[in-house]
Amino acid sequence: MQPYLIAPSILSADLARLGEDVADVLKCGADVIHFDVMDNHYVPNLTFGPALCKALREYGIQAPIDVHLMVKPVDRIIPDFAAAGASYITFHPEASEHIDRTLQLIRDQGCKSGLVFNPATPLSYLDYVMDKVDIILLMSVNPGFGGQSFIPSTLEKLKQARRRIDESGLDIRLEVDGGVKTNNIAQIAAAGADMFVAGSAIFDQPDYAQVISQMRAQLATVNR
Amino acid sequence: MQPYLIAPSILSADLARLGEDVADVLKCGADVIHFDVMDNHYVPNLTFGPALCKALREYGIQAPIDVHLMVKPVDRIIPDFAAAGASYITFHPEASEHIDRTLQLIRDQGCKSGLVFNPATPLSYLDYVMDKVDIILLMSVNPGFGGQSFIPSTLEKLKQARRRIDESGLDIRLEVDGGVKTNNIAQIAAAGADMFVAGSAIFDQPDYAQVISQMRAQLATVNR
Amino acid sequence: MQPYLIAPSILSADLARLGEDVADVLKCGADVIHFDVMDNHYVPNLTFGPALCKALREYGIQAPIDVHLMVKPVDRIIPDFAAAGASYITFHPEASEHIDRTLQLIRDQGCKSGLVFNPATPLSYLDYVMDKVDIILLMSVNPGFGGQSFIPSTLEKLKQARRRIDESGLDIRLEVDGGVKTNNIAQIAAAGADMFVAGSAIFDQPDYAQVISQMRAQLATVNR
Amino acid sequence: MQPYLIAPSILSADLARLGEDVADVLKCGADVIHFDVMDNHYVPNLTFGPALCKALREYGIQAPIDVHLMVKPVDRIIPDFAAAGASYITFHPEASEHIDRTLQLIRDQGCKSGLVFNPATPLSYLDYVMDKVDIILLMSVNPGFGGQSFIPSTLEKLKQARRRIDESGLDIRLEVDGGVKTNNIAQIAAAGADMFVAGSAIFDQPDYAQVISQMRAQLATVNR
Amino acid sequence: MQPYLIAPSILSADLARLGEDVADVLKCGADVIHFDVMDNHYVPNLTFGPALCKALREYGIQAPIDVHLMVKPVDRIIPDFAAAGASYITFHPEASEHIDRTLQLIRDQGCKSGLVFNPATPLSYLDYVMDKVDIILLMSVNPGFGGQSFIPSTLEKLKQARRRIDESGLDIRLEVDGGVKTNNIAQIAAAGADMFVAGSAIFDQPDYAQVISQMRAQLATVNR
Amino acid sequence: MQPYLIAPSILSADLARLGEDVADVLKCGADVIHFDVMDNHYVPNLTFGPALCKALREYGIQAPIDVHLMVKPVDRIIPDFAAAGASYITFHPEASEHIDRTLQLIRDQGCKSGLVFNPATPLSYLDYVMDKVDIILLMSVNPGFGGQSFIPSTLEKLKQARRRIDESGLDIRLEVDGGVKTNNIAQIAAAGADMFVAGSAIFDQPDYAQVISQMRAQLATVNR
Repeated sequence: MQPYLIAPSILSADLARLGEDVADVLKCGADVIHFDVMDNHYVPNLTFGPALCKALREYGIQAPIDVHLMVKPVDRIIPDFAAAGASYITFHPEASEHIDRTLQLIRDQGCKSGLVFNPATPLSYLDYVMDKVDIILLMSVNPGFGGQSFIPSTLEKLKQARRRIDESGLDIRLEVDGGVKTNNIAQIAAAGADMFVAGSAIFDQPDYAQVISQMRAQLATVNR
Repeated sequence: MQPYLIAPSILSADLARLGEDVADVLKCGADVIHFDVMDNHYVPNLTFGPALCKALREYGIQAPIDVHLMVKPVDRIIPDFAAAGASYITFHPEASEHIDRTLQLIRDQGCKSGLVFNPATPLSYLDYVMDKVDIILLMSVNPGFGGQSFIPSTLEKLKQARRRIDESGLDIRLEVDGGVKTNNIAQIAAAGADMFVAGSAIFDQPDYAQVISQMRAQLATVNR
Repeated sequence: MQPYLIAPSILSADLARLGEDVADVLKCGADVIHFDVMDNHYVPNLTFGPALCKALREYGIQAPIDVHLMVKPVDRIIPDFAAAGASYITFHPEASEHIDRTLQLIRDQGCKSGLVFNPATPLSYLDYVMDKVDIILLMSVNPGFGGQSFIPSTLEKLKQARRRIDESGLDIRLEVDGGVKTNNIAQIAAAGADMFVAGSAIFDQPDYAQVISQMRAQLATVNR
Repeated sequence: MQPYLIAPSILSADLARLGEDVADVLKCGADVIHFDVMDNHYVPNLTFGPALCKALREYGIQAPIDVHLMVKPVDRIIPDFAAAGASYITFHPEASEHIDRTLQLIRDQGCKSGLVFNPATPLSYLDYVMDKVDIILLMSVNPGFGGQSFIPSTLEKLKQARRRIDESGLDIRLEVDGGVKTNNIAQIAAAGADMFVAGSAIFDQPDYAQVISQMRAQLATVNR
Repeated sequence: MQPYLIAPSILSADLARLGEDVADVLKCGADVIHFDVMDNHYVPNLTFGPALCKALREYGIQAPIDVHLMVKPVDRIIPDFAAAGASYITFHPEASEHIDRTLQLIRDQGCKSGLVFNPATPLSYLDYVMDKVDIILLMSVNPGFGGQSFIPSTLEKLKQARRRIDESGLDIRLEVDGGVKTNNIAQIAAAGADMFVAGSAIFDQPDYAQVISQMRAQLATVNR
Repeated sequence: MQPYLIAPSILSADLARLGEDVADVLKCGADVIHFDVMDNHYVPNLTFGPALCKALREYGIQAPIDVHLMVKPVDRIIPDFAAAGASYITFHPEASEHIDRTLQLIRDQGCKSGLVFNPATPLSYLDYVMDKVDIILLMSVNPGFGGQSFIPSTLEKLKQARRRIDESGLDIRLEVDGGVKTNNIAQIAAAGADMFVAGSAIFDQPDYAQVISQMRAQLATVNR
């Protein structure tokens, strides 16, 4: 498995030219497209849904699409995203009455499944479902809001999640989302993350290739 | 006031190249961009929110944007759409506890306000707020689903709404959404509508200009 | 069409021997089995769901089953009841965001569709869907509670509903539920009802045949 | 029955000395104490509940207390207010699934019952329950917000409500709430109201007796 | 205390002849009747409520009835089930805002109280209420759906729950529900369970006595 | 920091003379005013909101006001309480989708922030937010109900919370609410609490000063 994945969030892309912008960032070295779905209920914002995901596939985007559901409830919309071309589908444990069943539903639809942890959410939701997650996403900011900085206590939480993954012996990605930048990505990787969402840190730069290669250079320094 | 407005719904546009597709349809003669917002609660689908509206403005779209909120509740998101460049904001009366206040909120934000009526929703919600609506939108299909045909009883309902508007003496648009096509637009206009949403009827055609000019030709035959 | 239908409500039957009790009441002259579904949300009680309906069919009950949904929301459970053998499915307009669509869903599943009106609910919900209902049910008590008497203002409401049906020229049943007894059924029929739910009035009597034939005798006196 | 009732709203009273302030306003000529209950759900504010009502009774207040429930749902809290000494209890029809039953519940608890109409709410909710209301309250501002002016279309709505009351032949109060002041109370009474809520119009004045007697003087000029 | 209890779930019984079927299974050696209550909200299915429980008691069933509430919220319906003859009442901690209070409410109504854990739900909900539960139910499938197999990670969770019970020194049953069959019941008991729900494993067999005695034979081999 | 704070709850004060009663209890030695906000949703009772808090400030109360939100959701009302003069604002973790963000919102509004734990709520909600709480409130009765006694298992929970605070090295108050009386306050303090809510234990006594000084005398015996 590739050691580190960089996942630009289209929240910060140019939505009026999304196909082109996403193709660009992939050409510049990104690995995965991060797709933030907000429903104006679980978070106070509304972003985009399955049709935009499908439009990216029809445009020709072939990279994995990592759908982060900030919606509640989650079950009804999962098959829609699977049909629209999602690769990963992750959700918040507080947003499903039946977490085990939802994880299974995602896999039954042919996608990789995962749980997302808000900054204050305890990791105990993982206790009995480690064998049903392909990815664990730790939020290092509060979802649904812009302009936040990386919350420092995430580093310790990443270490705890990394320990759970290593002890399980399973092939599970540890993703982090929020305030990841060139100047902290190495520290975050050192704490255990191996998949990095970045929004404005990439899309607000004039040269996507440069920032992505800087991130990779930083990651190359990590000795875990 | 311009007699008839044609409002292509971006639900059927190419979302991966939305700026370009919208600019095209406007160049081909459309008057207004119809923007269908679904939240996966009021309707079982999730489409797009304020950021996409803003992206269209930043792309350079200057035509009126007609935001149809299929969300519940509605008040929190209205200022976001106003800030993102919405021209009209309409909502379903069942989706607000305080209809009069919501209409006022839309106007306070500098937008034109309106109510949307589902196929079965009685027009009595208009009884005491005619002076607070700039637009009345009658759904001629059930919102949130694709592939439906124009519901015939809408024609009688359009006549009743037209009568209310004419009796009020106010300058209120009467919009219709669902199954409007070249072959029924004249009949719909004859029943009283003066603003026409069309999704696949326009965007699924190879030549937007041709279908829009056919619609206008049909509208020219209406003698109301 | 048969002029009057008598529909015993299984709410008052012996649920531990339901197949037998239902077969008995049908043998004694009942026309339709009324099936009251409560979900502890729309009404403060919980009764029974599709599995019990299916069990009646498997027991051999062939009479129409008239499913009255006192649940909110309604769409998800409708296919379950259709699969379980329901003949009619009725729901409260306040319990669906999209009344027209729900009525169509019931018919698409092969059942007859209807709306139920609480004592205070205005008939204006019928304004634009008369062509999509096979049955109109007026509650003459408040649903979800036992031991109530027939609300007198229902008589006037029945007349208004009857007028709407007659003016439509459509083949629509007018059902009434709550406090119907031998001593008021003629008056209720005279006001326009042609389908009568009766619970304890039938099942609490030792001789079902006697009470049903008394009801029919009363109905025979109605000159409408 | 006394022709006109003046009902100061304690929303504008001094809540830290409420017993004293309420006793004062009654001594100065007020007839009824208006008690605005908000739950931060039906309206975006939270005010006070049964314990404050009970404290007024224990302080010695004997005037009628007119409890306006801006809460949803309503049934659970009604017995609490009855036990706390409420005289009238009114609620919004949109806030109860079972309006007829809720009206009956209020009367069963020994209180007078009523419905409240938001500015845009149609009067059709009254169609089948005129015999179960002792009071009809028309909101002339949107509830839950301060600093609003009387909405002019309320005058026409008052006339329609007055006509319904007169045609019923029943003894029903017609109350109005929002922006009632000395300079418009006569016009409002002329339209049909006979019970007037006033908050800041009374409590923000240095001399309660003066403003109340001015209101009565205005009311004396009405020739209905 | 009897070492092992077998609790057939009436979900799989013949609901049209429920009294008879339940009496049969008890005669064939079952200890407890398991009663699965679903409300179409907490789980996407609706089963049956207090009236069916009462009908079983009136039929003459005297065995303990173990009511598993898959409803949300839970407090309002608990007294109804107690009055209907429930022996145990269990609920999901996610379905009550006030878990300690709900447990106490069940005991105040004269029933034994318990918590139910979905497959992914952490046991930490037990931390401060061990003295208020008479039973702990671990779901070994996701509730509300049929046709699932026993989830293997339940075995480890049973061991953890057993350890908590043993350390508490309290008399608490450890129940398991989902996919329990003759061929795994011994392994499940070895992990710590002492009460076993079985639905189709019993009711779908022609000879209830045979399958129950096979289960008991398996349980006799467990050396804990 | 002052070792122990006594916080009388105004739930038990005379609400008709609240300013005076609060001033009295402060003069008699109380340190903080505890302000219980209930919304009839998170708990089945409705008490009072920001306006009453503001009235106390306008009356001249200068002591800290400790606002305990028993409401759900919580974010919208927090700025209202900050503007009304709240000093502390605490909420239940189950009542916010985004606990970290809500804690930050309280501090951004200039107040001290805290989490409240129902009797059964695990302390794991503290795992990643210790640096964002100024106060931890453990409920020793179930909120929203009167007449309950101190739940004994709170003592062990207090010790665990005290350990978390001490290990953090942070300046965090440990408050307890429910059934605190003169005869158990020393034991509760010994378990780790340093802030004590008392309602009827103080306000139902004729001499506030006496009971408060008895409490202080008890606290003086604690050797922690």
